[in-house]
Amino acid sequence: MRANRVPTEEIKREPAAFADRVTADGRFGRAAEPGRYRLVISRACPWAHRVVMVRRLMGLEDAVSLAVADPVQEIIEGDPHWVFTEETGSPGGRDPVLGIHALREAYLAADPGYGGGVSVPALVDTGNGHVVSNDYDRLSIDMAAEWGPLARPGAPDLYPEGLRDEIEEVGEGVYNDVNNGVYRTGFAPDQERYDAAVARLFARLDGLEERLSTRRYLVGDHITLADVRLWSTLLRFDAAYHGLFKCNVRKISEYPALWGYARDLFQTPGFGDTANLDHIRTHYYRVMTGINPTGVIAAGPDPRGWLTPHHREELGGTPFGEGTAPGPVPEGERVPPIG
Amino acid sequence: MRANRVPTEEIKREPAAFADRVTADGRFGRAAEPGRYRLVISRACPWAHRVVMVRRLMGLEDAVSLAVADPVQEIIEGDPHWVFTEETGSPGGRDPVLGIHALREAYLAADPGYGGGVSVPALVDTGNGHVVSNDYDRLSIDMAAEWGPLARPGAPDLYPEGLRDEIEEVGEGVYNDVNNGVYRTGFAPDQERYDAAVARLFARLDGLEERLSTRRYLVGDHITLADVRLWSTLLRFDAAYHGLFKCNVRKISEYPALWGYARDLFQTPGFGDTANLDHIRTHYYRVMTGINPTGVIAAGPDPRGWLTPHHREELGGTPFGEGTAPGPVPEGERVPPIG
Repeated sequence: MRANRVPTEEIKREPAAFADRVTADGRFGRAAEPGRYRLVISRACPWAHRVVMVRRLMGLEDAVSLAVADPVQEIIEGDPHWVFTEETGSPGGRDPVLGIHALREAYLAADPGYGGGVSVPALVDTGNGHVVSNDYDRLSIDMAAEWGPLARPGAPDLYPEGLRDEIEEVGEGVYNDVNNGVYRTGFAPDQERYDAAVARLFARLDGLEERLSTRRYLVGDHITLADVRLWSTLLRFDAAYHGLFKCNVRKISEYPALWGYARDLFQTPGFGDTANLDHIRTHYYRVMTGINPTGVIAAGPDPRGWLTPHHREELGGTPFGEGTAPGPVPEGERVPPIG
Repeated sequence: MRANRVPTEEIKREPAAFADRVTADGRFGRAAEPGRYRLVISRACPWAHRVVMVRRLMGLEDAVSLAVADPVQEIIEGDPHWVFTEETGSPGGRDPVLGIHALREAYLAADPGYGGGVSVPALVDTGNGHVVSNDYDRLSIDMAAEWGPLARPGAPDLYPEGLRDEIEEVGEGVYNDVNNGVYRTGFAPDQERYDAAVARLFARLDGLEERLSTRRYLVGDHITLADVRLWSTLLRFDAAYHGLFKCNVRKISEYPALWGYARDLFQTPGFGDTANLDHIRTHYYRVMTGINPTGVIAAGPDPRGWLTPHHREELGGTPFGEGTAPGPVPEGERVPPIG
């Protein structure tokens, strides 16, 4: 995605260029040895965010370390690139573990002839500095379901076998119309494609509003990957997509059930404690000069709304099922509190 | 204003280039002879809109005719210009009375060497096709207070002598921080000036919210010019300024008193029946390519919100004092109904 240009065609996500699978048992070739892999993310990116949430909910912080890129990409050879900077805690503008400034270096280390897009999340092998996967969906599923022996005691089952079909069915509509739908709307190159995209987005949100008006979570009685996937877009909606991406039929805060649901999760350990709304607003408004030429970051809305009571407990269900909430966020990974 | 360029400096309004005063008694040189003057407006423009509202509230439709420009300005010699088009009801793309395609022709007729901005509203002398005033503030005051003998029976006093100081005092804050403040915010060329402008805008809106929580109208117990001035910005706020101009700390619909007040006036003859939200959204999103390069028009919010109950009658006050409501909108001047 060349977000610094005026859009001329509908946005499409490229398939992941690197998709090695890492599991506890190593049956696909790579074993999740504690400390071997480093997860490179941006706090702004919704695709990276879902992996960050799974990692934290599962208690994999010691198993896989975290590298946070600057929310403002740097233009390198004409394209925006995720980089490490002093401002976001990387001394000398290099990640202290990988020793790189731009994430693309890990892509080029793995494939010197690589000419595709460079995206987060990226799982990097600290042994040789090679990116091994930028497949955000597979990474989140595998960390939820395949890293079990490395997970904390009390880690929830985010991807229960009996609910996988329903999680994927719900997830497909959420992916096409919401996760990806906000980008399709925001980068629509003409009125016709915008009108179609925005209608599809809000039709899906209307349906989710109805679904969530009688149930606390999307699938089953506890948090699953379905919630993680939807929430990463809901978090960014009013702060970025509503205005910048013209997703302005309604705010999420104008949907009673969706807004209650979004706040409920924000206030649940593993969600709001991984959210950095400043990184989100800064990234979208500063980097996407193709749709925001001045790069000025919009002020609103007031983030304290996230902390207001939601009363969603009344719908039944419990966040972690037979599991428990994750403990405190490790020092060094904490996000600035709201308010 | 060169809204089709990326802003490089803070927006400033030029003083009106033409400011001949037209009054019933002609004491400043020009008499408001019925049928002699034609008011050129855009349904999109908030400065023109206040004159349209005064004209209708006072029942001056027969005294001064109305010419409505296309909401999308045409680029002529590099600058956007108000023009008449078939699409907006001008056969052959010329105003049927003035015979011109671009409003600038009336400016150049009055001053062949004119090189300043061309803006609406513009009052044009149909006798010679010269613009005589583009001073929106003076036009609205004069039509409210100086065209009396031509006004309808029952026309309200929009500018009562005893309230003029208060109307102007309230109006000054509204002008600086709200009417002009939304433009200052939307065209801020850098973060520092945006932050200052948006803070000032919302501080003023917060103050107006408080003022309007205990009183139905801004000054006195009836509608005055103070309300006309504020309302023309409130009407456009959620549809254009909130997203496009980054005035997104809150929507007007999130302010209980301001939103009730805005809907109360929308539902009062002379206000909503002069409002064309399609022209508003089309103009701002299509023309202002400096801040919206794709020209795509955002879909929301749902305009039917304007028609919901407001219960503002409970605060006391009556819209027209000892006067009456204006009658039906003349055929040929009707705006499309909402919903």
